[in-house]
Amino acid sequence: MPAPSPAPTTVPARPGIPVPREDLAGMHPYGAPQLDVPHMLNVNENPFPPSPALAAALGAAVTEAAAGLNRYPDREFTALRSDLAAYVGAEAQVPTPEVDQVWAANGSNEVMHQLMLAFGGPGRTALGFAPHYSMYPEYARDTFTRWVAAPRGPAPDFALTAEQVTDAIAQHDPDVVVLTSPNNPTGTALDLELVRAAAAALAPRRGLLVVDEAYGEFRRDGVPSALTLLPELPNLAVSRTMSKAFALAGARVGYLVADAAIVDAIRIVRLPYHLSAVTQAVARTALAHAEELLSQVKVLREERDALAEHLLARGHEVAPSDANFILFHVGGDRHAVWQTLLDHGVLIREVGPEGWLRVSIGTPDDNAAFRTALEEADPR
Amino acid sequence: MPAPSPAPTTVPARPGIPVPREDLAGMHPYGAPQLDVPHMLNVNENPFPPSPALAAALGAAVTEAAAGLNRYPDREFTALRSDLAAYVGAEAQVPTPEVDQVWAANGSNEVMHQLMLAFGGPGRTALGFAPHYSMYPEYARDTFTRWVAAPRGPAPDFALTAEQVTDAIAQHDPDVVVLTSPNNPTGTALDLELVRAAAAALAPRRGLLVVDEAYGEFRRDGVPSALTLLPELPNLAVSRTMSKAFALAGARVGYLVADAAIVDAIRIVRLPYHLSAVTQAVARTALAHAEELLSQVKVLREERDALAEHLLARGHEVAPSDANFILFHVGGDRHAVWQTLLDHGVLIREVGPEGWLRVSIGTPDDNAAFRTALEEADPR
Repeated sequence: MPAPSPAPTTVPARPGIPVPREDLAGMHPYGAPQLDVPHMLNVNENPFPPSPALAAALGAAVTEAAAGLNRYPDREFTALRSDLAAYVGAEAQVPTPEVDQVWAANGSNEVMHQLMLAFGGPGRTALGFAPHYSMYPEYARDTFTRWVAAPRGPAPDFALTAEQVTDAIAQHDPDVVVLTSPNNPTGTALDLELVRAAAAALAPRRGLLVVDEAYGEFRRDGVPSALTLLPELPNLAVSRTMSKAFALAGARVGYLVADAAIVDAIRIVRLPYHLSAVTQAVARTALAHAEELLSQVKVLREERDALAEHLLARGHEVAPSDANFILFHVGGDRHAVWQTLLDHGVLIREVGPEGWLRVSIGTPDDNAAFRTALEEADPR
Repeated sequence: MPAPSPAPTTVPARPGIPVPREDLAGMHPYGAPQLDVPHMLNVNENPFPPSPALAAALGAAVTEAAAGLNRYPDREFTALRSDLAAYVGAEAQVPTPEVDQVWAANGSNEVMHQLMLAFGGPGRTALGFAPHYSMYPEYARDTFTRWVAAPRGPAPDFALTAEQVTDAIAQHDPDVVVLTSPNNPTGTALDLELVRAAAAALAPRRGLLVVDEAYGEFRRDGVPSALTLLPELPNLAVSRTMSKAFALAGARVGYLVADAAIVDAIRIVRLPYHLSAVTQAVARTALAHAEELLSQVKVLREERDALAEHLLARGHEVAPSDANFILFHVGGDRHAVWQTLLDHGVLIREVGPEGWLRVSIGTPDDNAAFRTALEEADPR
């Protein structure tokens, strides 16, 4: 469990200190608070730690990899890409992608940064739909890509229609469009017709469509993955992560599947040897234990649906969720509600539109503690 | 040992494929060949793998970290920074830096990228001195920083004087200056007066001076580290790595020491949670075994000095080296010499000025194989 981090403040410039980029002036580092409380439901982590057997297997894999750790890692991490291809094929019930269609990096953060670096850049525009994941504008900022956020539909559905997406593409003429399914922080999944429409609208512009499926494995039955569209859409990249369903946030492994030409463009801008031999070994071992790890996804989906019912029964507005979190509306001052929950040992996230809060799905015990604390924090 | 990687070619664009940034057209991914040959002396790796005891300790540390791997890592990796501070203090015989003066990332690559992202960017210039490490222009390219290379002095010393540096600063008005000591691929260390002069020339411009000491621990007796200058130079960042002296290239851990305000600027542009809990555990375990790992540095320094003597005795021009490699001049076509060495199972690097080749210092066995093969490749 991480120690509390220093406050995210910037040190004032002192005499003789070099000057960072002017556009960074006054900015603060990204930071959800890293507090050590009994129920951490704030960053959509999977609450189930690796089993002792898996932890031992991960250690054994690293001991083995360590014998060659004086050498640089396989820069193309071919074995890991092959394992990821097999996994996504099975998970999304699509033909196994080719190895050269798969890419991975240190978390989806780095995957998205690499995508924006290759397909964005100065003079280029990336388009998303708000409310969206808070890091998207930072990926754009750090690649000097212009970030434009068009609005999603109104609460409580925060829906997105094909028309909204194609209208926004026509209006903003983006080089990169980021769709998120399920969306963070709303939990909303997208239907494939919308994804098709976005790809078609981008095609004449030679733009890239990214569908971020970080929470893809939590989607409800009958909700398909955009991975099924890869054969028909050459301008589609589907991004995923091992942080959520695989319960491996601490290992930092994000990946994507796309046409090999998209992957090849990333290879030009990636930092060589970006994925350590240790990370490769850890990720491959976790993939070999996919069944164990994914069995907990079912529990989390059931807990999510039960919590949504509970919140609705209490009279909250609730955004329908295909993810491992729920965005819900509270009465009065949301910060006061958030603080009261924290005072009861339940850390959730103050994010999304005013009046809404996001709670990650924890263990049954976590979720029960949240329900109890909510009675105090937002009495009904 | 990594498998051979796919050839570094780019896939031609097909209909419907999105278009990467125009300035990437025709570029190829960085890539020293990853070949599997008996004597790999091409990427300045440390030839001594971790001992079985250390490999087991690394695995045990990962087993322990794995118990919390469902959680995001400590975003500020405070414990690792503290360990790194203690190490550099002891290694360079300077007072232990404060934790907030230390930063780390997935290899020096990422540290340098972050530095250029925070202190470079569009409209800004970074200055280096050629021949230099081949990745410097890529860090600049990927942060849209203009890269300018001023020349080092002539062979075989490839020396750099304070006047050359301050003249180049006056001429190019850079925002970032990268000095490398010892320099790759020449092996040349810099004296501290030169570093002081560079920092003084940059101070009125509020520019950042980076001294890349990736190979710092291999420096000869009496050659000081730029770390000793940190108390007096607020615009200095000293970059180091665990890839070389620590024989941990596969683990991808680079770091820097600088004023806390410089570190704080990096915190704004770093991708959150960039350093995995696994990497943090591996790096801390290696630092706890520093004595074992660094004992091999002495062997490598002795092997280097002996090989330099040998090459000089054969009549080669040799660049004086404070690193774990030697740049030396060969007769005739250097590619033919390189190929003949490879045909004898010795992979070195075709880098540096025309007519020169770079050989990494391997085990005594590797170095003997190189000497033998060189008799065939470049008979004298």
